[in-house]
Amino acid sequence: YDLRLPPPTLEDLRSDGSRLQAQLAEEYGLADLSFDFELLRRLPDLLRGNEWSGSVALRGREVIGFLPPGQEFLGLAIDLGTTKIAGYLVDLVTGQLLAAKGVLNPQIRYGEDVMSRISYAMKEGATRLQEAIVGALNDLAQALCGECGLEAEQILEAVVVGNTAMHHLFLGLPVAQLGLAPYIPAVSEALEIKARDVGLSIAPGGYLHLLPNIAGFVGADHVAVLLATGIHEAEQATLGLDIGTNTEITLAVGGRLLSCSCASGPAFEGAHIKDGMRAAGGAIERLRIVDSQVEYQTIGDLPPVGLCGSGVLDAVAELLRLGIVDEKGAMRDHPRVRRIDRDKEFVLVEEGESGLDREIVITRRDIGEIQLAKGAIRAGINVLLSEAGLTDSDLEEVIIAGAFGNYIGIESGVAIGMLPPLPLERFKQVGNAAGMGAKIALISKEMRAQAAQIARRVEYIELTNYPSFAEEFTRSMRLGPAR
Amino acid sequence: YDLRLPPPTLEDLRSDGSRLQAQLAEEYGLADLSFDFELLRRLPDLLRGNEWSGSVALRGREVIGFLPPGQEFLGLAIDLGTTKIAGYLVDLVTGQLLAAKGVLNPQIRYGEDVMSRISYAMKEGATRLQEAIVGALNDLAQALCGECGLEAEQILEAVVVGNTAMHHLFLGLPVAQLGLAPYIPAVSEALEIKARDVGLSIAPGGYLHLLPNIAGFVGADHVAVLLATGIHEAEQATLGLDIGTNTEITLAVGGRLLSCSCASGPAFEGAHIKDGMRAAGGAIERLRIVDSQVEYQTIGDLPPVGLCGSGVLDAVAELLRLGIVDEKGAMRDHPRVRRIDRDKEFVLVEEGESGLDREIVITRRDIGEIQLAKGAIRAGINVLLSEAGLTDSDLEEVIIAGAFGNYIGIESGVAIGMLPPLPLERFKQVGNAAGMGAKIALISKEMRAQAAQIARRVEYIELTNYPSFAEEFTRSMRLGPAR
Repeated sequence: YDLRLPPPTLEDLRSDGSRLQAQLAEEYGLADLSFDFELLRRLPDLLRGNEWSGSVALRGREVIGFLPPGQEFLGLAIDLGTTKIAGYLVDLVTGQLLAAKGVLNPQIRYGEDVMSRISYAMKEGATRLQEAIVGALNDLAQALCGECGLEAEQILEAVVVGNTAMHHLFLGLPVAQLGLAPYIPAVSEALEIKARDVGLSIAPGGYLHLLPNIAGFVGADHVAVLLATGIHEAEQATLGLDIGTNTEITLAVGGRLLSCSCASGPAFEGAHIKDGMRAAGGAIERLRIVDSQVEYQTIGDLPPVGLCGSGVLDAVAELLRLGIVDEKGAMRDHPRVRRIDRDKEFVLVEEGESGLDREIVITRRDIGEIQLAKGAIRAGINVLLSEAGLTDSDLEEVIIAGAFGNYIGIESGVAIGMLPPLPLERFKQVGNAAGMGAKIALISKEMRAQAAQIARRVEYIELTNYPSFAEEFTRSMRLGPAR
Repeated sequence: YDLRLPPPTLEDLRSDGSRLQAQLAEEYGLADLSFDFELLRRLPDLLRGNEWSGSVALRGREVIGFLPPGQEFLGLAIDLGTTKIAGYLVDLVTGQLLAAKGVLNPQIRYGEDVMSRISYAMKEGATRLQEAIVGALNDLAQALCGECGLEAEQILEAVVVGNTAMHHLFLGLPVAQLGLAPYIPAVSEALEIKARDVGLSIAPGGYLHLLPNIAGFVGADHVAVLLATGIHEAEQATLGLDIGTNTEITLAVGGRLLSCSCASGPAFEGAHIKDGMRAAGGAIERLRIVDSQVEYQTIGDLPPVGLCGSGVLDAVAELLRLGIVDEKGAMRDHPRVRRIDRDKEFVLVEEGESGLDREIVITRRDIGEIQLAKGAIRAGINVLLSEAGLTDSDLEEVIIAGAFGNYIGIESGVAIGMLPPLPLERFKQVGNAAGMGAKIALISKEMRAQAAQIARRVEYIELTNYPSFAEEFTRSMRLGPAR
């Protein structure tokens, strides 16, 4: 709402608050308004510094923002991952994306995965973890605005999605009960809070919206994925996977939404893999073995320095296809296979070709890590299917979300049996759907209501508590297409 | 709402928030609730620490408090004066007063009166002033609770009333525009904010309610006085005065409420008076001169060490009655009158009788201070009466609020012409009505609505801007009953 107020005179002694309210009532017919308290603290200077003109932002009946004439109100969407944070700056009026940026989650210093951060928080207190993440988000907001010549103070609303642990650690909610069975979140409902209550430096009266969590290990980020991909509205049996250290899986069928989370481990992030690395320059991201020659593609076309998740997946699939690795993960002899210590390894890149001063290899142990990851994901899928009374072939669509999921070779995933053996056209790779979901929720109230509905509708299945899960898991460790 | 929740099990994985909401829905039919964010941060520990039982407090649809079984929710009413702070601890369920306590306003260090504090804030920043007052209120809350064996965390709601400057300085609202003509408040509407937003340490989700201000120099404390005394509902012409460094005056007549504020100065607080002092032990509070002998009464019946406001007032009235002081304030010769430097003084207490090692006197200059104070108050009353087309004798009731107003001799006030010449039975001394108003507003929503109405109804008259005020003021300095 654009306004120009009459300044006070000796005959017009109304307070700044009353003056602004009266003008909003007169020009726009708005009544019974209240003021955000932090905004009120700055209002006298803002009004006097801008010749009593500017734009006013309301949220319901609360006046939460005031900007000098000509400035726009902004929104910030954040996908708060365990490893990476993605931020999106949006024009709240037009809905246009103004800038996007990814940074590492600085909490990594305190633990690589969710569980190690929870135990850090339980031992050392969660304050440092919270400060780290809030600081990173403030820097990110600054950087995004800086790119566009805008101010973080123009950001009126932020939507943050993350897994339940990131959500709790960001908000300073206790995590002790989240780290121990039965893994109970402090809150699962969507939250609307003042951004300042968590230390987020946006507009003084700005709000922070958090999409609902589903359970201890299925968080708001997965709700955002469902929202962005529309899986919750699917009419045919549809599977949605967000592959990461924890892989969240949802099966939509006949109006039901069944979800679970499996501890797939960090192998697909390149961790716990001898020559594994994050998806960065020089990482082998795709790989084929043709006539005993390894053909590969690296990020940025740089000399290879390691394998990122999709490269590891391809390597395992190729070794399996060529019979160099059997379905139990054992390596048979081969000119490129060598024995080192108590392990065996397959040389993927010779020293001369490598960007390092040594070969790049994949070991028997690496393959074991992939078996664990693949086994967990496949077992999760099987539990959901059996709960719904379905089999692989009933799935009409499989949607794979997440940065890793965007780059993997679907064929390799099917070949090792991580993904169901379906025609390739039934798979859809959608990239960072959690970030998309956050953006959607930032702009649309209606979509927030949908997100709340999704969270309520989901039937969550706790795998560690599921009768046949252990057995499914053991069986699913076998490499090769599902039988 | 008393609750006992089923603890989570492997088969019941609901979040703490959902669990509590479900129970409130089941037992009390409450739906669509939200949680205060700070409460949410503590909820997991509170629930687990109290075997999933306790009392829940709601404010509208917001869950703002949780207490272990058997503890009661409390309320805190504060009259935040420029000099003194009065606090009242109330049981929110029964409305019973549990404890009351007064302390000095620690901001005195930064300036005795409102204007000197505003100029301190403008020069040095207001942070120190705010911290001082918030610290004092937190200490006061602790002390009040301590007296009753209760915890400040049980306080769910606080109501604070004060003049507009105290209100702004307490909240950290800017005061620059309040210190310069035309003296505009940042806000005049009632405010409902989270207590933590100003640093008040009560229940984590506790609220702070501030009654509305009327103008730069008629604050929420005066609204509280009107609320407590019911002047706003008076059917006959009624005058209400809250005498202090600033004296607020309201005239209720024929459904109108006319208010003004006059700078009566600190003389009635004992300041700027040679032997003046605050109303403390040994202060002469009442005084008569019989046959050239001064009869007096001191606070605590201690040997006299000075004059508090009511004592000064009596002294002036007696000297005037005996013709020792004329209506211009000049002192004529008398055995007890002596000349010192360029001033004259009347010895009230001889050295031998005094609790000091010297006499206690009242000087020509002291009388001048009283003339200024009296002149300002009387001129304010006259302006309101003339606005309403009334004269003194039309007043059916005169209500005098405030600690000072409670102790003064009405006869003396009438005798020097500060108060209208009316029969004594038309005067009513009501003590700390501002504190009473705060208590009323603490317990009753309906009364808060009334307070908002009062503030809207009041027609504020800015005296410094009123055509005949200067003339009225000069005329009213004359000592003696109004003619």
